Amino acid sequence: MLNHDLLITNATLLANPADCRLQKDAYLAVTDGAIVELGKMADLPVLPGADRIIDAGGNLVMPGLVNCHCHGAMTLFRGLADDLPLMTWLTEHIFPAEARLVDAEMVYWCSKLAAAEMLMGGTTTVADAYFYEDAAAQAFCESGLRAVAAQGIIDFPAPGVPDPSKNITAAADFLSSWQGKSPLLTPALFCHSPYTCGLDTLQRAKELAREAGSLFFIHLAETREETAQLKEQHGCTPVALLHGLGLLDENTVCVHCVWLEEGDIALLRETGAKVATCPESNMKLGSGIAPLAELLDAGIPVGLGTDGCASNNDLDLFQEMGNCARLHKVAAHAPTRLPAATLLGMATEMGARVLGLAGETGRLAVGLRADCIIIDTRQPHLTPFHNPETLVYAGRGSDVATVLIDGRVVMQDRRLLSFNIEETMNEVRRLARRVKAGGVKG
Amino acid sequence: MLNHDLLITNATLLANPADCRLQKDAYLAVTDGAIVELGKMADLPVLPGADRIIDAGGNLVMPGLVNCHCHGAMTLFRGLADDLPLMTWLTEHIFPAEARLVDAEMVYWCSKLAAAEMLMGGTTTVADAYFYEDAAAQAFCESGLRAVAAQGIIDFPAPGVPDPSKNITAAADFLSSWQGKSPLLTPALFCHSPYTCGLDTLQRAKELAREAGSLFFIHLAETREETAQLKEQHGCTPVALLHGLGLLDENTVCVHCVWLEEGDIALLRETGAKVATCPESNMKLGSGIAPLAELLDAGIPVGLGTDGCASNNDLDLFQEMGNCARLHKVAAHAPTRLPAATLLGMATEMGARVLGLAGETGRLAVGLRADCIIIDTRQPHLTPFHNPETLVYAGRGSDVATVLIDGRVVMQDRRLLSFNIEETMNEVRRLARRVKAGGVKG
Repeated sequence: MLNHDLLITNATLLANPADCRLQKDAYLAVTDGAIVELGKMADLPVLPGADRIIDAGGNLVMPGLVNCHCHGAMTLFRGLADDLPLMTWLTEHIFPAEARLVDAEMVYWCSKLAAAEMLMGGTTTVADAYFYEDAAAQAFCESGLRAVAAQGIIDFPAPGVPDPSKNITAAADFLSSWQGKSPLLTPALFCHSPYTCGLDTLQRAKELAREAGSLFFIHLAETREETAQLKEQHGCTPVALLHGLGLLDENTVCVHCVWLEEGDIALLRETGAKVATCPESNMKLGSGIAPLAELLDAGIPVGLGTDGCASNNDLDLFQEMGNCARLHKVAAHAPTRLPAATLLGMATEMGARVLGLAGETGRLAVGLRADCIIIDTRQPHLTPFHNPETLVYAGRGSDVATVLIDGRVVMQDRRLLSFNIEETMNEVRRLARRVKAGGVKG
Repeated sequence: MLNHDLLITNATLLANPADCRLQKDAYLAVTDGAIVELGKMADLPVLPGADRIIDAGGNLVMPGLVNCHCHGAMTLFRGLADDLPLMTWLTEHIFPAEARLVDAEMVYWCSKLAAAEMLMGGTTTVADAYFYEDAAAQAFCESGLRAVAAQGIIDFPAPGVPDPSKNITAAADFLSSWQGKSPLLTPALFCHSPYTCGLDTLQRAKELAREAGSLFFIHLAETREETAQLKEQHGCTPVALLHGLGLLDENTVCVHCVWLEEGDIALLRETGAKVATCPESNMKLGSGIAPLAELLDAGIPVGLGTDGCASNNDLDLFQEMGNCARLHKVAAHAPTRLPAATLLGMATEMGARVLGLAGETGRLAVGLRADCIIIDTRQPHLTPFHNPETLVYAGRGSDVATVLIDGRVVMQDRRLLSFNIEETMNEVRRLARRVKAGGVKG
């Protein structure tokens, strides 16, 4: 009899969330961080060998969620300046606060807080993008979260890279220092946008990403104004601009894609580019509604992202699923638009595909890494639990009781085990007092 | 020295949420169910006299939330039939399930489950509307929730009222049996809509409500189709139809009001009618977006409602606040639209005004009843806590630790004290098995 490292028993399995099929009375066995068996309790040996057994007690066990776009360190700016016009918010609050407060220490602690929030909300994989990404990567590694960490590139003086002419070198250093360093951490690049990076920078960054075999993230067509400005400047849509520069391929993740025009979706499909959509952020900033159904109909993999806490203001992918579905239903006046199963797929397997991690995470299947969450469905707001759609429309991060990543139990019964969350919250509160002392609103 | 029944110490007070002002190091004293003192900890006697002291430990204390429209018993149908066309959903799933399953027992247990969900999510007052409302009122009274319970009236055979010609009599019986029975329970009437009730029924129901001094609720202009149909039938908008029938006054609450036309808002304002908006339900059913900013600009009191669990699918007013704000921002392409303070006001003081309860609840002020909640702001997703706006954009029902209603502690540290929630969930699960046995989806 094989001695497993860990066994989850009495599970109601939602192995592949996109199919919304529940398998009752099931077990899942983990060895060396991988899922090695899935089956019916009835087929389990009377005395299964395992170093550790977690009895799910009939609760729902599903793959951990995948957050395809986040600026973790921006937890510091959560609620700092809500309800303002976009440009006032950016230029009078967020940019000055970033210029004054972002350093390696801030990114470390605030990314660690983001990691805690995500882990405690059932997110097991995040694609993060910020500056001082070195410190973010360190925080994610210590938290036990699976992460794609992308170093920011922008043609302005930036936190950690005061001289923009060094932004590609800094990014190259980041890639080389993190490649192969941790099995849970994948380094990548994040060009802020085609309106804050010159064409030369965009091309050099993508070239670097290609050489390193890394993902390339970019904010694209988020607001109407920025899209109109780029069209006027370059005579084509932002998507066409990137395509003309040779930036679109299967390792490029275009974030937002709200203001797409005819032809853009075809370009994304033909090049194999991926999309990350951030509906709550797009709603709160009044940016617009991405043509999500059209992107999905075209077969383009679209992942869900929370964006940063300055514009969301939390990192809860359960609520992001529900709101994404509700938003597109009301926009199309069609309750059939974006059914719950689509959202469950986007937040798991399709998200993993967007990040090139479908061979590791996003489903519960033999051979994949053991990234899974146990949801306490025995609460008033999830009762009765007729079917998994309820996770999308009534679930929230706080329903997650237990989280495994790569076979490691990082949260059990809502106790975070991988690091000291009180210390992290205290450090962030200390930094938050500096935000207030700077005189910005709050 | 006065001996208070209860003292909340070390509170960060948000006494009037609409002003978003926090008062640190405060206390609140309760006697005979009323707030009798609010002040600074420094002004508190060294040995305050109180039978019970709750140390808020610096956490946020605010008035409980007011849910202005709910069909509590529909918790049984949570997630029963999501993502379907409106008419398929109604006629093939909800109506048949209601016809088969709604009885006094179902309404009692499922309303009690709704009460648990609301209490545990910080809602201290609900306006409920359903059939067998007698059983719902009983459940609310036992739960400790403050409730306006409205008996349903519809010109079709209905649960508990198989003969539609008896619907007004049944409603009159309900009113007389509950008036003055419990200080927390206010009976009222709910005409389902002008497309399911004849004009004579509408007028007789309103007449009954007037005689009894009761609130009159009605679904109004929820979908484009229903609104167009009424216009064709009567030659005027639904609002104008009600106005012509003499149904609009300060004791009428119009629910939804999505499809308003020019002139409708003026009629609502002139008559003093109130509005309840249910954004998550309107989103999920693809109904549309109410002209909320215009209604508020006209000075019409608008409360927030969750609607029932078949179309939301939860009863969490914190998420309803955030989603209402986000929806209207994206619809108007304006992040300044519906700031957080407006939502906090709608969910508390303005909601109380809509229900005619502003003299009892909705703010923390001396003389009002002690309906208040303590929010645990020391969690990752609420850290840092720069300001109360964070409650709207990152808060959720599960952040509520402790709930007082009318001075009674109904939940403390997330333990529901007023009734046995496990028993209630078990009873609803038993009923849910009958839903499935009936062969409807799920």
